[in-house]
Amino acid sequence: MTTPRIYVGPKASPELTEAVTTAGATVTDNPGDATAIVWFGGSPQDFAGVDHEGIRWVQLQSAGVEGWFASGVLVEGKVFTSAAGSYAETVAEQALALLLAGARKLPELARARTWTRVSSGSLFDSTVGIVGAGGIGRAIIPLLTPFRARILAITRSGTPVPGAAQTVTPDRLDDVLRESAFVVIGAPATPDTRHLIGRHELALMRPDAWLVNIARGSLIDTDALVDALRAGDIGGAGLDVTDPEPLPDGHPLWTEPRALITPHSANPDYLLVPQLARRVHDNVRHYLADEPLEGIIDLTRGY
Amino acid sequence: MTTPRIYVGPKASPELTEAVTTAGATVTDNPGDATAIVWFGGSPQDFAGVDHEGIRWVQLQSAGVEGWFASGVLVEGKVFTSAAGSYAETVAEQALALLLAGARKLPELARARTWTRVSSGSLFDSTVGIVGAGGIGRAIIPLLTPFRARILAITRSGTPVPGAAQTVTPDRLDDVLRESAFVVIGAPATPDTRHLIGRHELALMRPDAWLVNIARGSLIDTDALVDALRAGDIGGAGLDVTDPEPLPDGHPLWTEPRALITPHSANPDYLLVPQLARRVHDNVRHYLADEPLEGIIDLTRGY
Repeated sequence: MTTPRIYVGPKASPELTEAVTTAGATVTDNPGDATAIVWFGGSPQDFAGVDHEGIRWVQLQSAGVEGWFASGVLVEGKVFTSAAGSYAETVAEQALALLLAGARKLPELARARTWTRVSSGSLFDSTVGIVGAGGIGRAIIPLLTPFRARILAITRSGTPVPGAAQTVTPDRLDDVLRESAFVVIGAPATPDTRHLIGRHELALMRPDAWLVNIARGSLIDTDALVDALRAGDIGGAGLDVTDPEPLPDGHPLWTEPRALITPHSANPDYLLVPQLARRVHDNVRHYLADEPLEGIIDLTRGY
Repeated sequence: MTTPRIYVGPKASPELTEAVTTAGATVTDNPGDATAIVWFGGSPQDFAGVDHEGIRWVQLQSAGVEGWFASGVLVEGKVFTSAAGSYAETVAEQALALLLAGARKLPELARARTWTRVSSGSLFDSTVGIVGAGGIGRAIIPLLTPFRARILAITRSGTPVPGAAQTVTPDRLDDVLRESAFVVIGAPATPDTRHLIGRHELALMRPDAWLVNIARGSLIDTDALVDALRAGDIGGAGLDVTDPEPLPDGHPLWTEPRALITPHSANPDYLLVPQLARRVHDNVRHYLADEPLEGIIDLTRGY
């Protein structure tokens, strides 16, 4: 049996090449010569132009793959894997940073130019709703454990999430929103989850509730959120992702006192390639051993 | 034996009164009639005017008691206890909020009005120096544990702090500052710790290091800090306490891009009395049982 050949590109990456070779496969410059592709630094459109006749498996570099679905290149007959879960820790860290920023009123305080009295909240003994407890949502739980937070998790299946006080299915979203002092959006972007948080949902939230989105901007109806923030219907929002993205200059969220925008910066640049390399290494080993791959994209489910 | 009588005041507090009575003591309106005082809502100067001839024990409401030392009312012959440790959890939460704000560049981002690229850091696998690992400093450690942070603790005694990779004595401060990506100041304010972090110490810190002060403003030389921030000698600073305090309008720290000021708001108002009440309850029980009290102030040590 010959060593499987894997194409890494179109952008060169010594770290990813090393991840492939140390896992036991050979790297080739020619996709036509490969049985697998680690697609790095290229768009779905670029991918469509690649010769992938002999390709059995394609590793993508992002955790969210809605752009790949939209481009129509994800088709039956090959296994596509996303990086879902690879960046979970550092994205969970951003979620905690945004949760604490909300609890401790950091958006207002960072903009203040005078000593004020401020009424802080706390994550200690609080109720935190995690809407979409997948890789990232689950990675938040250990960060909240020291705060004795009561976690209400929502997953598609409702199968109990370790560390959650309750795990429920998406039809119970309203209940979770009513109860939670903090709400973290971690669900994937699919046609089903578009505007998952809209006017109805925002109206159910506690007036002091703080909403964090580290998933995809499309999960929140931005106009409804702007109105809810202006009206004081919720306590505030920390958004690492927005819709549209980038958020245009002059958008009302930029000047909303109770909003904090971080520009899709949850995953530090310097950690992106090392984290992806770890996933590539693991998946190449699985591939060679004919074991199940991590992050397999379900073409029906849409993520 | 008669039930000991305890004066609670000068400000009335039903929660503190309840904490005393449920612990088994009797509350009296007259300090002259009491053997112990829970001093709430009054200054050291007010205290000096109280009849405390028969008083054996005084519980103060704050964790830091440098103002009590300065006023000269802490004298031999009575036991004084501070609230040190009572607020540790929520102050540690503020420290974590400020650490994450620094790692994730929230000060700059909160003030931004346009989508930018930002280079985030991470607490994961980082080195965190805790300068003064007392009640608050120790309470930060469990919050950092999920990040696999390497904790370098400084204590007066050097006795190993649980959860710290290393515990050293204050003469090793320079080493801790050189190594740490994040530095948290948690030491008490005494004449010895004034300007513990000055020009020399700031110059030793890593250029990307983030400095957090949740102890007392006097521990940092503010002018030296302003210069270090302007020069880019350190990555930035998150300050819940300042010197002077309140920080006056127009002070350069208000507009320093890499500084974040929270106005001594580490302990949420709504938790202050409940947390103090727990300490009062515990200490009244100890007092009645003739057990050692928590938070005893050492008149020689100065805290």
